[in-house]
Amino acid sequence: MMNRKKFLQSIGAASAFLGIPFSALANDKVTTINDALRSKRIQSDGSMVGFSVDPIKKVRVGIIGLGNRGKVLTQMFYWLIQNNKAEIVGLSDLVEENLDATIDRLKAHQKSKPAKYFGKEDEWKKLVDRDDIDLILITTPWEWHTPMSVYAMRKGKHVACEVPIAYTLEDCQLLIQTAEETKKHCMMIENCCYNEEELFVLNMIQEGVFGDLTHAEGAYIHDLRKHMLSEDYYQDQWRIKHHQQRDGNFYTTHGIGPISNYLNIGRGDNYVSLTSMSSREKNLSDAAKKINSPYADIKCGDMNTTLIKTSLGKTVMLQFDVHTGSPYSRINKVVGTGAVHAGYPSRLYIDNPDDLKYWGHEWLDDTSYQEYKSKYTHPMIKKLKTISQDYKQGHGGMDFVMIYRLITCLNLGVELDQTIYDGVVWSSITPLSELSVAKNSQSVEFPDFTGGTWEKERELEVMRGLS
Amino acid sequence: MMNRKKFLQSIGAASAFLGIPFSALANDKVTTINDALRSKRIQSDGSMVGFSVDPIKKVRVGIIGLGNRGKVLTQMFYWLIQNNKAEIVGLSDLVEENLDATIDRLKAHQKSKPAKYFGKEDEWKKLVDRDDIDLILITTPWEWHTPMSVYAMRKGKHVACEVPIAYTLEDCQLLIQTAEETKKHCMMIENCCYNEEELFVLNMIQEGVFGDLTHAEGAYIHDLRKHMLSEDYYQDQWRIKHHQQRDGNFYTTHGIGPISNYLNIGRGDNYVSLTSMSSREKNLSDAAKKINSPYADIKCGDMNTTLIKTSLGKTVMLQFDVHTGSPYSRINKVVGTGAVHAGYPSRLYIDNPDDLKYWGHEWLDDTSYQEYKSKYTHPMIKKLKTISQDYKQGHGGMDFVMIYRLITCLNLGVELDQTIYDGVVWSSITPLSELSVAKNSQSVEFPDFTGGTWEKERELEVMRGLS
Repeated sequence: MMNRKKFLQSIGAASAFLGIPFSALANDKVTTINDALRSKRIQSDGSMVGFSVDPIKKVRVGIIGLGNRGKVLTQMFYWLIQNNKAEIVGLSDLVEENLDATIDRLKAHQKSKPAKYFGKEDEWKKLVDRDDIDLILITTPWEWHTPMSVYAMRKGKHVACEVPIAYTLEDCQLLIQTAEETKKHCMMIENCCYNEEELFVLNMIQEGVFGDLTHAEGAYIHDLRKHMLSEDYYQDQWRIKHHQQRDGNFYTTHGIGPISNYLNIGRGDNYVSLTSMSSREKNLSDAAKKINSPYADIKCGDMNTTLIKTSLGKTVMLQFDVHTGSPYSRINKVVGTGAVHAGYPSRLYIDNPDDLKYWGHEWLDDTSYQEYKSKYTHPMIKKLKTISQDYKQGHGGMDFVMIYRLITCLNLGVELDQTIYDGVVWSSITPLSELSVAKNSQSVEFPDFTGGTWEKERELEVMRGLS
Repeated sequence: MMNRKKFLQSIGAASAFLGIPFSALANDKVTTINDALRSKRIQSDGSMVGFSVDPIKKVRVGIIGLGNRGKVLTQMFYWLIQNNKAEIVGLSDLVEENLDATIDRLKAHQKSKPAKYFGKEDEWKKLVDRDDIDLILITTPWEWHTPMSVYAMRKGKHVACEVPIAYTLEDCQLLIQTAEETKKHCMMIENCCYNEEELFVLNMIQEGVFGDLTHAEGAYIHDLRKHMLSEDYYQDQWRIKHHQQRDGNFYTTHGIGPISNYLNIGRGDNYVSLTSMSSREKNLSDAAKKINSPYADIKCGDMNTTLIKTSLGKTVMLQFDVHTGSPYSRINKVVGTGAVHAGYPSRLYIDNPDDLKYWGHEWLDDTSYQEYKSKYTHPMIKKLKTISQDYKQGHGGMDFVMIYRLITCLNLGVELDQTIYDGVVWSSITPLSELSVAKNSQSVEFPDFTGGTWEKERELEVMRGLS
C-alpha cells in the first residue's frame, strides 16, 4: 500500500507552486498526468457504500456559515423543528449580525435558542467541539468545505456540506480517508438532485421509460457577474478570486449530480475519462472594468465545456458559464433508446422503433407531456405534497426536499442518498477539468474514488420510498 | 518543401490498413498524431482566397448524381433557367430512370433537353469531358465527392459539391492542391449557411449586435434510422456502411458551416485544436436487428460531441446524432459579449452590462424578438423575397438561396461565398474527430489548410450585397 503522507506531500508541493493541485504536472508531457494519477491512485476501501447509523430520533444540528446560503437552508428546518425531527443547537459565522438575523427568524419555530459562535476565524471549531450535536451543516466559502468536514468527522459529527465539497484532488482523498476512518456520514448536499424536474426524469429512467441510456448533458449557466462583483454579497468577494486564479468548471454539481443519478454512477457504472475546453474570457472582465473593480484580471474562460466518458461507454457533456448573460440553464438532457428529455423548458420525446420517421420527430405535445408528468412524478414529491406546503420552499422546493430527506434518513437510521464517494466524484471534475484545460484539452483519466465498489449494481433505492 | 507524393503514399498506406486515414497512427503514442500532422503539414499557397473568374453570363451546368439530393437541387435551377442565368446541359446517374424523371420535370422550364450519361460507373466522366460545360454539380455518395471534384477541375470545370467534400485528410490535401493548380472554383455547397435563421444571426454578428464572440454550438441531430435502413433510399445503402466502419462526426458541415461564418474562420481566425468523444452505440443496431437488416453491426456511437478551439480562443461544441429519435436540431447557439442566440426554437438574448441581474435573465419576448428579426433579416433574404416566390423552396428556402447565390456570383464574376479552404476545413473535422475518438479523446492539432492566409481579417463581404 502506498504512503499516503508522501502522496499528499508531493501534490501539496505542486499545489503550492501555482495554487492548483497537480498544476506543476500541467507543464510536463501529456502522459505524465495520467501516469501521476495512476501511481497516486486514490486509496479507498469503499466501506461507506450502503453505510448507515442507528436512528437519531431528533437530529441536533450545528450550522457553520450563515451568509446567503446558510440563511435559506436554515428556513428549510422549520417544519422539521416543529415536528420534533430536528433542532438547531448552535450557529457560527464571522459576522454576529448574520447569526442574530437567523435566530430572530427561528424564534417562531423553535423554543430553544441556538448558541452563537462568531468573530474569530476559528470560532466554528467550538461549535463542532460540543458534545450535544449530531450533524454539522457547512455553508461557507468553498475553501472551507473540506477542512471543516474533516474536522467535524474527526470530532464525531456527521456532516452535510454545501457544493463543491472539495476542489482539489488532495481534498478528495482526505475526505474519503476521513469518512472511512471515522465512520461518519459526509454528504454533499446537492439540491438540484431534489428538484421536481430532475426527480421526474430519474423516476422515468428507473421505471424503464428511457431504455438504455447513451448520453446526458448538464450545465450551470447562470449570470453571476452582479454577485461576484458586489462588494458585500460573497464575504470578502471570495468567489471572483477563484475566477482570477483558475480555469475550468468550478461548479459542476448542479449538472453532474442529477446526471450521475440518471447514469447509475457508483452503482454499476463510473466515470473513466474526461476532456475539457475553456473559451477565452471577455464578459466578467468587461463588467469589472466598467465599475473600476480591482478584480478585472480574470483567468477563467467565459464558457467551459467538459466531456466525460463512463465505463459502459455513456457520455456526458457538462458546461459552466457564469460570466455571460445567457439565460439560466442546467440543460438536463438525457438520451436513451426509449426516450429523450431536454430542459429549459422541459420537453419529452418517446421513441417508437416500430414507426421510424425521417421528418416529424416532435417533442410530446402538452397533453401527452402532462400525462407522463402526472404518471411519473417522483413518489417523494407526491408524498411531500401531502405532508407540508413547505415543499415549494427554497429554489422552488428542491432545498426543502433535500433537507427533509437528509433529516428523515437520519431519523430512520437508513443510508443517505449520496455517499462520500458521490460528493467527491461530482466535485473532482473541477480539478480534473483544470488539468485538462491547462494541457490543451488533453484527455485525463478519472480516478476511481470508490475502491472498486462502483462495479456492483445498486439502484438509488433510498430515493424510491420515504418514511 | 516536402514531397507531396511521398506524403500521399504514406497516408495512403495507413488508409488501406484500417479503412480510415491516419488510422495506423491511432494505435501509436498520443504525441505521434500531432507529430505526424506537423511533419505532414498540408501544402497550400492560399492563392484561392478571394479568387474569381470572368463573368459567365449563362452558366452551363452538368449534374452528377440524380438521387434524392440531385433531384431537389435541380428544381432550384428553374428560376435561373427561366431568367437565362443557367442551363442544365447534361446529367449523369447510374440509374437511367433517375435522369428521365428529372428531364421530364425540367421540360416546363428549359427548352433544350440535357444529355444523359448512365449505366456504367465511369459514365460521369463523359459528362465532365464535354467542352460546353462551365460548372459540375456533384450530388453523389460521399466517397465520390473528392475524386469527381478533382477530375472535374482537371478537366477545366468549376465545381460545386455536396457535403462533405472530403472525409479523409489525404482528400483534403488533394482538393486544395488541385484547386490551386487548376485555378478553378471548388465550392462545397453547405445549404444551412443560407438558411434564414443562420443568415439572421450572421447579419446581427456582422452589425455588431453580439459584440465579441466567445462560444458557439452546432449540431446535426436528425434521426436517419429509417433512411439508412431502407434498401432503396441510399443507393446500395452506402450511408449505413460508414456507420459500420467508422466512429466520429461524419456530418459536420450543417453545424460548423454557419458557425465558421459567425466566427470569421479563414478570415481572421482559424481552428487550432480539437477533441472528440463518442458515446456507446445502441439505437441504430437495435432498429437494424428489429427488421433483420444485414447492417446491424454498427461502430459509430449514438452521440458524438466534438470540441474545437480557435486561434483567438473561441470555442465550438459540435454534435452528431443520427441514430436516436431526438427531435431535429442544429442547436445554433452563439454567445457574445452583447447577445446570445439559441435555436430550436430561435431565441435571442440582448445583454445589458449596465443592468446586471442575478435572476431574471430572459430570452426576448416575442414582440422584441420580432423587432430584431425584422431589423436584421439578412439583406440577401430581403432582396430575394422581392425577386421570386421560389425563395421558400428546398429545405424551407436554403437550397434555393444557395444555388441562386452560386450562379449569380458566377454570372457576375465575383468570388464565391466559400473557398476551397472553407469546404476542406469544415469537412476535415470528420477525420480529425475519428482520430481523437480512436485515441480516447486526445486533443488533436487542427492543420492549417489555408497556407497562413487565415490571419488576414476579411469580412464575408460577398454575402453582404447581391446583384
